[in-house]
Amino acid sequence: MAIRTRQSAAIQGELGAFSYSAARKLLGNRALIVPCETFKSVFDAVESGKAEQAVLPIENTLHGSVHETYDQLINHHLVISGETSIRICHNLIGFRGIRFKDVRRAFSHPVALNQCRNFFSRNGQIEPVSYYDTAGSVKMLSEKAVEGAAAIASDAAAELYGGTILRRNIEDNRQNFTRFFLLTKQARPTRRRAAWKTSIAFSVPNLPGALFKAMACFALRDVSLTKIESRPLREKPWEYLFYVDLIGSQEDPMVERALGNLQEMTSFFKLLGSYQPTP
Amino acid sequence: MAIRTRQSAAIQGELGAFSYSAARKLLGNRALIVPCETFKSVFDAVESGKAEQAVLPIENTLHGSVHETYDQLINHHLVISGETSIRICHNLIGFRGIRFKDVRRAFSHPVALNQCRNFFSRNGQIEPVSYYDTAGSVKMLSEKAVEGAAAIASDAAAELYGGTILRRNIEDNRQNFTRFFLLTKQARPTRRRAAWKTSIAFSVPNLPGALFKAMACFALRDVSLTKIESRPLREKPWEYLFYVDLIGSQEDPMVERALGNLQEMTSFFKLLGSYQPTP
Repeated sequence: MAIRTRQSAAIQGELGAFSYSAARKLLGNRALIVPCETFKSVFDAVESGKAEQAVLPIENTLHGSVHETYDQLINHHLVISGETSIRICHNLIGFRGIRFKDVRRAFSHPVALNQCRNFFSRNGQIEPVSYYDTAGSVKMLSEKAVEGAAAIASDAAAELYGGTILRRNIEDNRQNFTRFFLLTKQARPTRRRAAWKTSIAFSVPNLPGALFKAMACFALRDVSLTKIESRPLREKPWEYLFYVDLIGSQEDPMVERALGNLQEMTSFFKLLGSYQPTP
Repeated sequence: MAIRTRQSAAIQGELGAFSYSAARKLLGNRALIVPCETFKSVFDAVESGKAEQAVLPIENTLHGSVHETYDQLINHHLVISGETSIRICHNLIGFRGIRFKDVRRAFSHPVALNQCRNFFSRNGQIEPVSYYDTAGSVKMLSEKAVEGAAAIASDAAAELYGGTILRRNIEDNRQNFTRFFLLTKQARPTRRRAAWKTSIAFSVPNLPGALFKAMACFALRDVSLTKIESRPLREKPWEYLFYVDLIGSQEDPMVERALGNLQEMTSFFKLLGSYQPTP
């Protein structure tokens, strides 16, 4: 009888970060989460066998695509095997029975503090204090008593470190979502009743007609795109890298033919993976 | 005789931030820079007449497009009148004669600290400390003595606050550039010998054939694109907002016709401006 070990996933950031919530959503609560410092060390962790898979952010509705994740995807051999989105909710989290009216400082990453501006204008008695990480600020307050201090982070961080949520959803914008990819060494199809998606990256030597012809490969076969993005290559001023997501699996005949056709005109092409989104 | 007043430009962040360097590059050293807290307050400053123009980041080679700037551009009436790029260089900056070997802590924004990881691994005696802003950390150290402390920021910040650069270009990646737009109330053409560019934002009701047809408006007229990016509209799950930059001015007949043709098939269209890049 085979012994089924726990699934493990490397993430960038501390336990309780938004990547942690995404990994839980993709892999369930039993999965072992391996926190890593950098995006590169997340890939290294999977390639060296320290973790079976990785969960990394790929784009955010306010801040755009995470080019660093694309860069690592292009330079490593992991494939995209899953996808999900997480709404970025910030909560004010306290420890040791602190009450809201006694909070004078709120620790968090400056990007998170900046996403709670309305909360700080309404509560002038609370001063925002920068910290290196959202979940890290909760962890720090769980370990040491800081007078009048609270942290701003996800509810997962509050739960993980045993903090109390003093104010929930204090973010300014409810339309702040981050999309995450699940990465594995080999393609590992799920069997959900969801439409497949496929992500690719490619370059075409020069823009005007070339991009149009590249689009034609998909349009002529009725393959729908859900993302297209150009990124200038600084080393080659007139070349561009494109990110494209499309509806369908790489095994669908129409997608296969479209990708074959596309490769006739690309100077670089990489299939990043086919996957079924987790809603 | 008309009295020529100094040009003024609103930026987001402190004096000495990278937006400050971009504003200096676009407008020269005599321009008055008006620091603002948020992207929205930068637009408000120009619309209310507090500043004549604005300089805002639009994309970064590592972190992607700044959707917040696009959002404000779509919701306000300012037009793009100029463009430039700044290489993001980080420097270790000290005050009051501190020597490199005495530095024990380096204050900066966590994103900047994260871009200097190799520096911190090589110099284990220096601890990174998060602060709300890169230039703000220089300003803080210029105002108060903190033992063994230095800041990480641009050389413009060092110059502005009278700090000494202890180590120059300590960033890991030399290919880190941010692109900035100059925004004004009315189009204000420069007369540089540079090719014009035009930026637009538009939506098409559904993707497969629609984007291909939209691209055809440009391809059939040999109008070259330098950027294309789709952004899902979360309120309308199957609609997308597109950002396109093209070579040519809105007054070029071919561009004018292409944009007219495009508007026959868009559900939303906004011309963001025509401009000549400052190299």
